[in-house]
Amino acid sequence: MSRGRVTIPTDESFVEGTKEIAKKWGADAVRDCDGTVLPANVQELAEKVYNTYFVVRGDNEWAEAHPDECHRVFLMSARYLAEGSTLEMDPMRGYFADQIAPDTNQLSRWQVIDRTSETEVKDWSFDKKTGYVVLKNAQPMHEYTVDFLAKITWHPVQIYNYLTNNWTCPKQKMYDPAFPQTASYVQRHMEEWCKAHPETNVVRFTTFLYQFTLVFNEKGKEKYVDWFGYGMSTSPALLDAFEKEYGYALCAEDFVDGGSYNNPFRVPSKKFLDWMDFVQRKVSSVVKDLVKTVHKYGKEAMMFLGDDWIGAEPYGKYFKDMQLDAVVGSVGGGVTVRMLSEIPHVKYREGRFLPYFFPDTFFEGNEDNAVAELDRNWTTARRALLRKPLDRMGFGGYLSLAAKFPKFVDRVTQVCDEFRTIVEAAGKSAPYCGLTVAILNAWGSLRSWQSHMVAHELWYQQIYSYQGILEALSGLAVNVKFISFEDVKRGIDADIDVIINVGEAGTAYSGAQYWADERIVTAIRRWVREGHGFIGVGEPTAYAKGGRFFALADVLGVDKEISLTLSEDKYNIQKQSHFITEDVQGEIDYGEGMKNIYALEGAQVLDIAFSDRFRRSVNVGEVLLAANEYGKGRGVYMAGLPYSAQNARLLYRAMFWAAHKEGEMQRAFSSHPQTECTYYPETDRYAIVNNAQTAVQTYFYDKDGESELLTLQPHQILWK
Amino acid sequence: MSRGRVTIPTDESFVEGTKEIAKKWGADAVRDCDGTVLPANVQELAEKVYNTYFVVRGDNEWAEAHPDECHRVFLMSARYLAEGSTLEMDPMRGYFADQIAPDTNQLSRWQVIDRTSETEVKDWSFDKKTGYVVLKNAQPMHEYTVDFLAKITWHPVQIYNYLTNNWTCPKQKMYDPAFPQTASYVQRHMEEWCKAHPETNVVRFTTFLYQFTLVFNEKGKEKYVDWFGYGMSTSPALLDAFEKEYGYALCAEDFVDGGSYNNPFRVPSKKFLDWMDFVQRKVSSVVKDLVKTVHKYGKEAMMFLGDDWIGAEPYGKYFKDMQLDAVVGSVGGGVTVRMLSEIPHVKYREGRFLPYFFPDTFFEGNEDNAVAELDRNWTTARRALLRKPLDRMGFGGYLSLAAKFPKFVDRVTQVCDEFRTIVEAAGKSAPYCGLTVAILNAWGSLRSWQSHMVAHELWYQQIYSYQGILEALSGLAVNVKFISFEDVKRGIDADIDVIINVGEAGTAYSGAQYWADERIVTAIRRWVREGHGFIGVGEPTAYAKGGRFFALADVLGVDKEISLTLSEDKYNIQKQSHFITEDVQGEIDYGEGMKNIYALEGAQVLDIAFSDRFRRSVNVGEVLLAANEYGKGRGVYMAGLPYSAQNARLLYRAMFWAAHKEGEMQRAFSSHPQTECTYYPETDRYAIVNNAQTAVQTYFYDKDGESELLTLQPHQILWK
Repeated sequence: MSRGRVTIPTDESFVEGTKEIAKKWGADAVRDCDGTVLPANVQELAEKVYNTYFVVRGDNEWAEAHPDECHRVFLMSARYLAEGSTLEMDPMRGYFADQIAPDTNQLSRWQVIDRTSETEVKDWSFDKKTGYVVLKNAQPMHEYTVDFLAKITWHPVQIYNYLTNNWTCPKQKMYDPAFPQTASYVQRHMEEWCKAHPETNVVRFTTFLYQFTLVFNEKGKEKYVDWFGYGMSTSPALLDAFEKEYGYALCAEDFVDGGSYNNPFRVPSKKFLDWMDFVQRKVSSVVKDLVKTVHKYGKEAMMFLGDDWIGAEPYGKYFKDMQLDAVVGSVGGGVTVRMLSEIPHVKYREGRFLPYFFPDTFFEGNEDNAVAELDRNWTTARRALLRKPLDRMGFGGYLSLAAKFPKFVDRVTQVCDEFRTIVEAAGKSAPYCGLTVAILNAWGSLRSWQSHMVAHELWYQQIYSYQGILEALSGLAVNVKFISFEDVKRGIDADIDVIINVGEAGTAYSGAQYWADERIVTAIRRWVREGHGFIGVGEPTAYAKGGRFFALADVLGVDKEISLTLSEDKYNIQKQSHFITEDVQGEIDYGEGMKNIYALEGAQVLDIAFSDRFRRSVNVGEVLLAANEYGKGRGVYMAGLPYSAQNARLLYRAMFWAAHKEGEMQRAFSSHPQTECTYYPETDRYAIVNNAQTAVQTYFYDKDGESELLTLQPHQILWK
Repeated sequence: MSRGRVTIPTDESFVEGTKEIAKKWGADAVRDCDGTVLPANVQELAEKVYNTYFVVRGDNEWAEAHPDECHRVFLMSARYLAEGSTLEMDPMRGYFADQIAPDTNQLSRWQVIDRTSETEVKDWSFDKKTGYVVLKNAQPMHEYTVDFLAKITWHPVQIYNYLTNNWTCPKQKMYDPAFPQTASYVQRHMEEWCKAHPETNVVRFTTFLYQFTLVFNEKGKEKYVDWFGYGMSTSPALLDAFEKEYGYALCAEDFVDGGSYNNPFRVPSKKFLDWMDFVQRKVSSVVKDLVKTVHKYGKEAMMFLGDDWIGAEPYGKYFKDMQLDAVVGSVGGGVTVRMLSEIPHVKYREGRFLPYFFPDTFFEGNEDNAVAELDRNWTTARRALLRKPLDRMGFGGYLSLAAKFPKFVDRVTQVCDEFRTIVEAAGKSAPYCGLTVAILNAWGSLRSWQSHMVAHELWYQQIYSYQGILEALSGLAVNVKFISFEDVKRGIDADIDVIINVGEAGTAYSGAQYWADERIVTAIRRWVREGHGFIGVGEPTAYAKGGRFFALADVLGVDKEISLTLSEDKYNIQKQSHFITEDVQGEIDYGEGMKNIYALEGAQVLDIAFSDRFRRSVNVGEVLLAANEYGKGRGVYMAGLPYSAQNARLLYRAMFWAAHKEGEMQRAFSSHPQTECTYYPETDRYAIVNNAQTAVQTYFYDKDGESELLTLQPHQILWK
């Protein structure tokens, strides 16, 4: 049994139990959680003690003494329809009065927008008595909104915990270091706190200055959530500083954005990119000083990837300036593993695994389910860890609850050992990659492993069919890059074999107006014709122009019928067998799929759906999977691809085919789609994993293509 | 047994058989078909003899003597990708050399378009030797097309018959009366023909001057078909005359339209509307003179609604000028009945019913299927006939084939009697209408009963979910109007209770950019708030603006999530029972349905689909049916509504609910959804029909709401 690399939660009422479990799991660190208190003798429990630290909340005394230095957010009111020329609008309708309050001292920053004509209305007043905005010359039958600046009077994440877990502790107010008094206060407080916490080895920042956008409705339920949202970074102090530096001012509507709030599905505007850059610089400069203090006291600074992480993007330009020691984040699958494990400029990266030790899972009689959830989480994470491991793992919640489930405790023991074995093997040498693939979207490397997320890892019907591509990639034997359209304009990196464009028309992930840019279109055409591969998923390269809906319809071999070319007969509806679909058993799962895709002449239709009622021999069927020769290169289209073992294999094959490297696929490869092989050239070791809950037989191929029949037990990892 | 109102086909080899059947069916007219010859003693067969007449084909001698006076069409070549700076493009690639030939005498009308940059290229030449268009300064990786003018060397409809029915007769060339020689020739020929055909009572024009767009591919298969297409009206003579009259010239790309060829799903451009008006005037002026000649010889002029009908739109401004006596068209269901039966300015309207007497249906052993097809066609048509009857019915094909099926002959006998009864009852008095509803699209009354058609009545997966609305309306007890967005701007007619907007985003049927026009948006909002109803189907009022995708989301109570507001929590997912769904048994059929529709706060969700894998309690489900209070008016949303008895009832209820007239629905009403009631106030008669193949029990409500239980036999029509 090995030791180390594992962090467990503890609290003052479970000291002896913690010691026992720490021994079993080989844990070398303990941590508190939001809502628990560390025991007095915590140093005795493990080599390292993590302590949660909040920069902008937790000191209500300070907050109450400096009410103007709270955080702000620009919000759009409900829509009001003008019936006559007078219109009264309550900005707070639908918002949670416990969370926000209109900042009526900043009325000059408010805007009234006529949403019907998309114009700003200047002619309005604010009624102090009612709190309403009043128009006197409204245009009847136009819809209006108020873009108003609001003070944040309760930390959103605490609201969530409060309402979800029925907390009764004091409501944490916030204070914004963009204001000078709070700026020096947070540095001072850091120093004092370090002094007062000699037992702490690791300051776990939860997190820094600006919370991701999280707004509640009048019933205290979540109203708006964007894990990437800069909405709560709109400090008046920062707005003024921005104007001074950039020479132009940002207004409320620049942030409100018609109600879309510059969420990451929007193609970012120049203004918003300017603001992001500005905030990132501000955040890193404040955090850098906090970290200096932490280091001065011999402690490590760890960032929790979540909560107030806005402006501290780990793949951003200024992340390294903060001089952090570590990052920790929650692991929901392979994508979140890679999102964490590839973060540069830190000494180590830690993943918090599921399930949380909370009563919703750890109640009597639910032990088998808890073990199953652990297995599921571990298996999906493991394939990503084999490609690029985290340095540490951990759990959250109440350890005392987990301790009541002995089977669960035993299974975690095995998992911790397996984790350490993987880190030892994979942490030392880069694994063999058959290909280099690049995900192309408007964000590029800044949002590495983060595309299509809304509320961190939450499931949305509109995204899982696209997220599946990343989840599949997280454990496949390919090198993965994230590139932007600007990168393409500068020149596609020489090492890239395949570019993947995945997403819905009109979003930053598909690319929207970028596909109107002929420099991008011609650059990719040329690059594919020279012998590379291009894979499109969903509505790739979508931008109606020149009679096409997909700008690269010629590369993909398909286009989308948007009811403007129904008169054109489409005869290419015959399904063909293909290298890409060789491992498919039964139906392919395309998730939400895509309607109205048709194949161009010459493309190979690999899968097509026919309506039960189809009544013609042409113009029928919706293409789900297609392959297309394009010069010396190739294009592939997929309607969608939620993650599953079969789909990961399908993608793997599609990438090798697109790259014209089919012959090289069976190297360091395991034939059964439920299995995967990772090869570490430096140590000449192979790890073959079984992702299934059942035993499977598979042909293992070594790096030279020599094969051998193996049997793998459920969830087994086999080292060779 | 009654007589009259029925036309049957005949030919020289089936004289005695024709007499027998004419007697059974009460037929009073006989006709020839394209490909048959009338018997010599044809006058003995019936009171009236119809004779097919072609204006612009049939005289190959004339055509060959005047090869420059043939018809023309602007076509887009295949797309050519430039690899280097030189690019050779074969305009004819993919086209049928038997049908068209590039008009190389009109090269000045050709255009080369760079489809990647959407610009015209002037720097090209035509290589006479190869027939290719050559670019010397192409931009590599741009796609180019040639918009070329082609001569039509074989009549498209004859090609269809030729290839489908293996004809071997001479290939009919065409000649265009836009040219002066042909102009006088067609008038002269009409005169001569009338003289030579004393036996003919009715000249059945098939049809006039310009064929709807019908283009074949290199294999002789249909390549492009648009029943409304003006593509083949682009005579150089007309183009010159247009320029003279309008003061500006139309170019090839004005017709090619990026490959969409101004098909009716496109919002028509000003230029295209000008061209349509111009062509309509030209056609009516030529046809008017032909009709004069027909009348001079004591014959009637009947227009076949199809083939070369472009420019002769029956609901167009210049239709009445032609002084036609009658129109005939094929009947595929209720919509085509109403399309024909409401045509103004003619003495009578005739429908050609299905099935055709062709060997594909009338082969040995298929009699029951032939009867079933007749029943299906008759039942769907009958409900429309009861609202607005045709004056005559008829059949096409080879009567000798039908004569071999006695059960079929007997069933037609019944149908003909039923038809005459309906015409007698319904032809004399307008039926009771509970409501007036208007279909709103970019075409308005010009394309009455024609929206969403591509190739006449052919089924397309992308349209049946919308066509179902019209099919349902064709037999419901409501008055139906067709209005355009321009009509809305001028003011909504006072008699309209409900407006229906149905179709796909970006099309002329939904409205596309019209919904960016605040005059339209505010006019409808006001009108609904005053107490009217608005029903949207599919992607109604779709135009992304002001943070909404549906311009009238506030009226409809729903919007479409286009992946830009996923961050917003949507809680309105609870299905509610409602007046609109009271007659629903089992699942509602939405056809192709619609993805990503969500309900706004306050709307009533009447039906919602949940994914099998949904994993959250918010932001899930796709709304399929919703109802919304809006001021004193109401909005209703439907994801799609293919025609079925149940869906027709659903629409009927939705219209009454939207109009705030639920209480009036049960007047002249039959409760069972498979039944419908039509009431004729002038004669105080009720017709109750059973559309089902089984007997049903139903409550009949008279005009005062008094009810009575009735039993109706399969397909029965009951007069009260």
